[in-house]
Amino acid sequence: MYGAVIHAPGDVRYEQRDDPRIVEPTDAVIRLAASCVCGSDLWDYRGINPVRRPRPMGHEYVGVVEQIGDAVTTIKVGDFVVGSFFASDNSCAICRAGYQSRCVDARPVGAGGAQAELLRVPLADGTLVATPGQPDADLIPSLLAASDVLGTGWFGAVAAEAGPGKTVAVVGDGAVGLLAVLAAKQLGAERIIAMSRHEPRQRLALEFGATDIVTERGDDGVAKVKELTDGLGAHSVVEAVGTQEAMSQAIRSTRHGGHVGFVGVSHGVEIPGQELFYAEIHLHGGPAPVRRFLPDLIDRIWRREIDPGKVFDLTLPLSEVAEGYRAMDERRAIKALLQP
Amino acid sequence: MYGAVIHAPGDVRYEQRDDPRIVEPTDAVIRLAASCVCGSDLWDYRGINPVRRPRPMGHEYVGVVEQIGDAVTTIKVGDFVVGSFFASDNSCAICRAGYQSRCVDARPVGAGGAQAELLRVPLADGTLVATPGQPDADLIPSLLAASDVLGTGWFGAVAAEAGPGKTVAVVGDGAVGLLAVLAAKQLGAERIIAMSRHEPRQRLALEFGATDIVTERGDDGVAKVKELTDGLGAHSVVEAVGTQEAMSQAIRSTRHGGHVGFVGVSHGVEIPGQELFYAEIHLHGGPAPVRRFLPDLIDRIWRREIDPGKVFDLTLPLSEVAEGYRAMDERRAIKALLQP
Repeated sequence: MYGAVIHAPGDVRYEQRDDPRIVEPTDAVIRLAASCVCGSDLWDYRGINPVRRPRPMGHEYVGVVEQIGDAVTTIKVGDFVVGSFFASDNSCAICRAGYQSRCVDARPVGAGGAQAELLRVPLADGTLVATPGQPDADLIPSLLAASDVLGTGWFGAVAAEAGPGKTVAVVGDGAVGLLAVLAAKQLGAERIIAMSRHEPRQRLALEFGATDIVTERGDDGVAKVKELTDGLGAHSVVEAVGTQEAMSQAIRSTRHGGHVGFVGVSHGVEIPGQELFYAEIHLHGGPAPVRRFLPDLIDRIWRREIDPGKVFDLTLPLSEVAEGYRAMDERRAIKALLQP
Repeated sequence: MYGAVIHAPGDVRYEQRDDPRIVEPTDAVIRLAASCVCGSDLWDYRGINPVRRPRPMGHEYVGVVEQIGDAVTTIKVGDFVVGSFFASDNSCAICRAGYQSRCVDARPVGAGGAQAELLRVPLADGTLVATPGQPDADLIPSLLAASDVLGTGWFGAVAAEAGPGKTVAVVGDGAVGLLAVLAAKQLGAERIIAMSRHEPRQRLALEFGATDIVTERGDDGVAKVKELTDGLGAHSVVEAVGTQEAMSQAIRSTRHGGHVGFVGVSHGVEIPGQELFYAEIHLHGGPAPVRRFLPDLIDRIWRREIDPGKVFDLTLPLSEVAEGYRAMDERRAIKALLQP
């Protein structure tokens, strides 16, 4: 089969690779209907995460089950499935508490590389969720979004306790931030402030339910959020970037007693204890337990209540994966969908 | 009147000072029935917080209202009252959300110094809670504890979401940590791990409801908590110290998806964003909104359901306040009660 392999920062290639196969009896192999490039893939592409040896890329996937191991009981060959970037048994105490991304047996699905034609998924029964049937083609981008960016934005909004009567601010206008806006809207937030200075992203934020756009960043952005909230700050703030500036902006934009949900993968962030103490906010985040939300998200997509697939503003054949990375790196695209 | 004044690290004096008086119409002046020395006072006493000029000390208080300003309507002269170290209007949006310590008009009560015969309390209606009548003498230590250490330990346990079915670990065996143990027990926790290496404090922890004592600290303490919790960590951890070591120990002792409530005043703490991201815990803390809990705490004390006053293992006349500081600094006493 063919798939994407990163060789060095800026160097992603479409290459022939060995077909994945069943290794453990709890595995499944799926034939991908679509994959995509993640904002977190850019940490490697930009050399912020070191690239020490060639590595298959991609961890977002939807597709049809082609093979299952002997111990797989709930997922069948032919099922159309959505999964998360962490495989989980969905039965341990941590999974049962809703933190499947930190399952006692959690395994990164991305090790095999989902920007490919085929993907091995470990712990198939605990990881994959089958859709009610074969989806119409126009639902595939949204189902693919559920695999990571929607699930992650949703977790950010849930961690920030977005809900009725709340003012929610979202720091970060990548696909995750935009889908945190959509999640906040679905969760019933009264007012949703999207922090973005990019016109096409602002437009999508408004379409997803944002009521206000703040273009300022850093302390100016904080001042603007306070101005919009009687000087108090937002009840709920989603941090969807992962930098020091974004985390500080999120903490300072939150009212005392409010909630920050952070889902940007932390890079070099240090949180000053004293500032956090006197901010007196709630802070919760980490790798999104997407599996917790998948049944609900698939249901909302299936009923066409939400259309998170709109974050894909570039569709390419998988063979042009390198262009997908380039377009996202240069911010010419919000998110690139890849068709094997 | 007489009261305690700190002149330099290690130098607390009992001195004549001007009587406090009504300054604003929302003020009350109370005659103290008891005051005490706080663990946080030791930050000054030890020179960790700079002492730049002589300053009245103390922020924990119970007593009888002696004067009220013209605008005070709910508190009457002669009431026996308990208040918190932050005055609050108890009516702004932040107070209504339960964060009176961060009231939009919050003011430190300690500015006047509660280790004294008389104390001016701003925003008396919002800050003070009257007891149902004049308390029996044996209730006064417990009511005094409610003013800060009990309210703070209680907030720590609430912030850590201690409750039925939960395993709660408490880092710190000062009065706040010990009362977090009491709070966890009252909130219905199933198992309570007190982290303490001091025998008299261990004894009190057990009396307050601890089910396990862990004497190890740092990573050894973390390993011990994991050993007691199927390798997962505690559901809820209270951090009641305020140092880097204690915060790290708290975060690492918490299971994924669990809750840390931190109430130790942060000194030099830096929380690594990446560790927090992958720990995937909830983190909440700050200056305890004691006012939120006071009516309930007073009620529990009045009905003699709890006896938090046991943390006072040294009682001194106010004139011997300097010995109270020394005894706590040298860890000869858990907490010193002062009688004006």
